[in-house]
Amino acid sequence: MSLDLSADLVSLLRTITDVESVSGNEKELADLIEEAMRTLGHLEVHRDGDAVIARTNLGRPERVVIAGHIDTVPVAGNLPSRLEEGERGLHVVGRGTCDMKAGVAVQLKLAAELAEPNRDITWIFYDNEEVGADENGLGRVAENSPELLEADFAVLMEPTDAQIEGGCQGVLRILITVPGKAAHAARSWLGVNAIHGLSDVLDRLNAYEAREVVVDDLTYHEGLNAVLVSGGVATNVIPPSARIEVNYRYAPDKTTEEALAELRRVFEGHSFDINDVSPAARPGLDQPLARAFVESVGQPARPKYGWTDVARFSELGIPAVNYGPGDPSLAHTDHEYCPANQLDQCAEGLRVWLSNQEDDA
Amino acid sequence: MSLDLSADLVSLLRTITDVESVSGNEKELADLIEEAMRTLGHLEVHRDGDAVIARTNLGRPERVVIAGHIDTVPVAGNLPSRLEEGERGLHVVGRGTCDMKAGVAVQLKLAAELAEPNRDITWIFYDNEEVGADENGLGRVAENSPELLEADFAVLMEPTDAQIEGGCQGVLRILITVPGKAAHAARSWLGVNAIHGLSDVLDRLNAYEAREVVVDDLTYHEGLNAVLVSGGVATNVIPPSARIEVNYRYAPDKTTEEALAELRRVFEGHSFDINDVSPAARPGLDQPLARAFVESVGQPARPKYGWTDVARFSELGIPAVNYGPGDPSLAHTDHEYCPANQLDQCAEGLRVWLSNQEDDA
Repeated sequence: MSLDLSADLVSLLRTITDVESVSGNEKELADLIEEAMRTLGHLEVHRDGDAVIARTNLGRPERVVIAGHIDTVPVAGNLPSRLEEGERGLHVVGRGTCDMKAGVAVQLKLAAELAEPNRDITWIFYDNEEVGADENGLGRVAENSPELLEADFAVLMEPTDAQIEGGCQGVLRILITVPGKAAHAARSWLGVNAIHGLSDVLDRLNAYEAREVVVDDLTYHEGLNAVLVSGGVATNVIPPSARIEVNYRYAPDKTTEEALAELRRVFEGHSFDINDVSPAARPGLDQPLARAFVESVGQPARPKYGWTDVARFSELGIPAVNYGPGDPSLAHTDHEYCPANQLDQCAEGLRVWLSNQEDDA
Repeated sequence: MSLDLSADLVSLLRTITDVESVSGNEKELADLIEEAMRTLGHLEVHRDGDAVIARTNLGRPERVVIAGHIDTVPVAGNLPSRLEEGERGLHVVGRGTCDMKAGVAVQLKLAAELAEPNRDITWIFYDNEEVGADENGLGRVAENSPELLEADFAVLMEPTDAQIEGGCQGVLRILITVPGKAAHAARSWLGVNAIHGLSDVLDRLNAYEAREVVVDDLTYHEGLNAVLVSGGVATNVIPPSARIEVNYRYAPDKTTEEALAELRRVFEGHSFDINDVSPAARPGLDQPLARAFVESVGQPARPKYGWTDVARFSELGIPAVNYGPGDPSLAHTDHEYCPANQLDQCAEGLRVWLSNQEDDA
């Protein structure tokens, strides 16, 4: 089997969807993508683990990265793919169709088609995005071959309903532990009830007013939420300890340090451990290349609420936006799908921007 | 291996402590006890699951039950047993030493020794006391062979610091579930955070003022405590549900129905399931055999705070008290121990009462 890049986008999406590639199992799909890229004379192809990087080298004064991850969250009886007529017209349904093989299909199609783009393009197809940050294929490439990621601008084809979404929220997860003192429940006055002690943490969470923040003209809505709670050891013991994990989504006007300082302020008097840190990314829409892209697509940009690898580009100093087919609220759901018209819409948005001679640098 | 009932009480306690018997795993210890009882010619021995019942049949006009459970709460790095010199002299330290293998050691020793007691004795060693009432070995024996429990009075050898403790608190355990609505943590305003919703339950618990109640001259101290809490499904999801288990210890002036009405009042507006119901028992110290025991031991009786199986005897119409070695406030703690002198004290208290010819019926 090999990928037919001359096929229509729906067929191409179904083909790559039906090659199951749950995180850690991307090899078969990466092999197919590498092989397809190597048939294209205008691309220089690199392989790093199960990531494939394919670049034009036309000596254009600007270079853009167009990236997508090829892994998915676990299959839930939703493979092979199928077609449905739905509220948004023709839907391609199945694990990964939304997050984010639809974007990958557009990448593959345009990589074949755009032999003479107006900007040099680095196509990146990478592994292990849906798991821990340590395993992320894009992070590994940045470590192994940073020169392959050099660019002036990046488009990450995560699902955005074919809208340009700028920046991303940062995430801090902390684990607050409230201590107590065990005692038999029959003599509770000899102990200190750690679960009762959680009320102070919950009161602060309930009192917290999440900000709405405008950054580079986009409004970000923050959030401070308990996501997990546990405590107690047995039904007849005064709980000696209770734990509450808090997920803080913060707008890209804050650095990680500032976000941490905010949590220290909110939970003053409680000690906590930091379980996860993912920095925010500014929208970067003040950058000329980003502005040119927004103008070419012809739609206003929106804020991205979820965390995506645009933050990784942001850390490398590369302005980046999200732009891809599929409804982001369907990502990871068992009934994820991509409307066929969004495949065409995104392909056309990128095609015009990367072909337009007036806009040529 | 077999039990040496001629050994001193400290050695006997250490031997049975070192046979781990966390609830559900009592078979090895029950086998040893059954075997030891069968070597004693003056006892008729029955086995029911991992409960062992051994009775004298001397035709005495009165019969007393002396009972103890052989299971423990989970081990917490506190086995095998060890000896320490502590504030109360020689301590036997380790899981179960206090609750309640010290009492079991006294039972075993006296079962061997008292071949001709002044009252017929039914020795009961039973399983699964530290878990749900449905699994309780004494309850199972009462169901399977009620004739084996017939008696005029019962002594339960739960730890009481070698004091007679009358009656027991009732226990109601309820599970309060707070509903929410799942959403991605990045878009938390689309969900309802069930963990945040726990604060109302915790506020009521923190505001609750537990009563102190006098019943039959003994003062009982009530308690209302969260013992377990859990909630949340993943670190990036607004929790759709959270649960808090509440343990209510109530004085024996309340019926189970009255206690339940109190919980309905305290948690009005929340729905809950009832996870456990264990009725309270009045002290019963107005009964002649109870009075004779108190007089023989020569100490004033105290109230029992914890729930014990005296309530089970109370329901069978058998007056019952708690009397055993070990500090009840150490029960279930990781540093539980029994002072050696309390082993001797309880053995002597029972020995005198069950041998005293003047007191012979």
